[in-house]
Amino acid sequence: MKKLINQVDDVVAEALRGMAAAHPDLIEINLGPDYVVRKGAPVQGRVALVSGGGSGHEPMHGGFVGAGMLAGACPGAVFTSPTPDQIHECTRRVSGGAGVVHIVKNYTGDVLNFEMAAELAQAEGIEVASAVIDDDVAVKDSLYTAGRRGVGTTVLAEKIAGARAEEGGSLVEVADVVRTVNASGRSMGMALTSCTVPSAGEPTFELGEDEMEIGIGIHGEPGRERMPLEPADRIVDRLLEPVLSDLPFRSGDRVLAFVNGMGGTPLIELYVAMRRVAEALGEAGLRLERTLVGSYITSLEMAGLSITMLRLDDELLRLWDAPVHTPALRWGM
Amino acid sequence: MKKLINQVDDVVAEALRGMAAAHPDLIEINLGPDYVVRKGAPVQGRVALVSGGGSGHEPMHGGFVGAGMLAGACPGAVFTSPTPDQIHECTRRVSGGAGVVHIVKNYTGDVLNFEMAAELAQAEGIEVASAVIDDDVAVKDSLYTAGRRGVGTTVLAEKIAGARAEEGGSLVEVADVVRTVNASGRSMGMALTSCTVPSAGEPTFELGEDEMEIGIGIHGEPGRERMPLEPADRIVDRLLEPVLSDLPFRSGDRVLAFVNGMGGTPLIELYVAMRRVAEALGEAGLRLERTLVGSYITSLEMAGLSITMLRLDDELLRLWDAPVHTPALRWGM
Repeated sequence: MKKLINQVDDVVAEALRGMAAAHPDLIEINLGPDYVVRKGAPVQGRVALVSGGGSGHEPMHGGFVGAGMLAGACPGAVFTSPTPDQIHECTRRVSGGAGVVHIVKNYTGDVLNFEMAAELAQAEGIEVASAVIDDDVAVKDSLYTAGRRGVGTTVLAEKIAGARAEEGGSLVEVADVVRTVNASGRSMGMALTSCTVPSAGEPTFELGEDEMEIGIGIHGEPGRERMPLEPADRIVDRLLEPVLSDLPFRSGDRVLAFVNGMGGTPLIELYVAMRRVAEALGEAGLRLERTLVGSYITSLEMAGLSITMLRLDDELLRLWDAPVHTPALRWGM
Repeated sequence: MKKLINQVDDVVAEALRGMAAAHPDLIEINLGPDYVVRKGAPVQGRVALVSGGGSGHEPMHGGFVGAGMLAGACPGAVFTSPTPDQIHECTRRVSGGAGVVHIVKNYTGDVLNFEMAAELAQAEGIEVASAVIDDDVAVKDSLYTAGRRGVGTTVLAEKIAGARAEEGGSLVEVADVVRTVNASGRSMGMALTSCTVPSAGEPTFELGEDEMEIGIGIHGEPGRERMPLEPADRIVDRLLEPVLSDLPFRSGDRVLAFVNGMGGTPLIELYVAMRRVAEALGEAGLRLERTLVGSYITSLEMAGLSITMLRLDDELLRLWDAPVHTPALRWGM
């Protein structure tokens, strides 16, 4: 196992300490339980967004904590849900009196633990609204989910709803924005290689030298099909077709295209894929209004990519463009 | 060779077309010869910065074209210098009458070709000032250089000098900023894995399952030492010690620490390394004023990292903090 780590058990805490050292102007961390909160949290009178999930998907979610995005993030062990206590304590820490929105990716452990945390917080008088992301069109049920998995749309929902919270939206309004983004976003991913969870010490799965997996999950869980490697354009088409036909996106729709690297994918390959995405959207009559190209929801060192398409309206576009300042996404400030 | 590409010969042009599709508000591209320029270039009356080098190091350099950074970037074939004609044409395209600064990484081919391009431009009446980056402390001469190689400090020089150009600095002033940054920055890198140049189809070099290479170059050229894999903290110390002792950095110095991924390194590992960087700087009495953590000067899918330290003064800090809007670096706008 070739990784830049020290002790296997220290990876998450050490990465959080590295984040704190790198971004003291943006975030604060707590260790035991582990969470990242916006510097100076809580912001009184503002709705606070909290997300979380297993570690190994960086920059998601800790890298999205800051002005205009998340108030708090709870990283579990690698590919393991955060605990109810952890989420509860983070929720309490960022609560500014206007309520807390939990953004939950649809994995069984995450959903259960966020539910328990919400109950604990509500018992103390903190209003919590939960919104689940389940945008992965690859599979209906899966290894870790009832229903679809939550993947790339999560990043977009955190940005867009974070902007609504920042400008003073109510608890109901901010949670509704998360639900609107989830209803308007669809994703699918693929892998060229596996990844190795540090505590396991060996690859989560094996892929032959000429194989790829289409519809892979962000924990390496099986997708739709294992098949021979193909040219990038054909791979993009294999992901885009089910993504576009599911919503469905229609000619004339305005869209944000998010081409995401899985962690070990060089940027030059993401732009090769982006070229075909733009071309294919043109063929479908879609209007490419915004893009996000980079590794934002990853699976350790897995090579591969996912494509997320979000249908935009004026309000989502306005909130996407609003200023944000986090370790991983920043503009306008 | 597992890559998200189509035809090997099309990788660079297709990636450029993907960049153009993703960032139409920021850049324009030309194919044959290939270059990326700031949208609307030239900016009349402003000094223009042009850089370039082999492809495979994305986002460097094309990802740094935009307001407050580069006016133009010339990508060669993968790990191959751009041609004199290519650099010349890009120089002419971005020239706004106030002169053009060439930022050149110290590799024999790059230096020669930029020199020839500068002569061609000067023969047409375009003033060109060249500044070479040679910040890699790993080796004195190397496979592709007389003298030290140019690596991570290039990114910082492009940002900082770009800010000086944006605010109206003269040709001499902007070139002097590049030289000051080069004189104040030191870098060293390491690799856990090799990388595969698409046209070669097999790894540039081989590393055993328990081996790493310290002092690696960004084209996979040999470094100082091949040795058994060690914990991340020990690796950071092996890079930091020669970096800090070379300038030398002294107790009380203000510094920017740039922890850079080689392309296939997950962000969680860069933050694990960042933790030790911050700790070690504290032990050395250095003041960590700014950080940059991410994959900005890469070697295709190589796993590994490099560390660049830049000594800051008030002026460099002011220029670093100035607004920038490029595909890969953005703040303040």
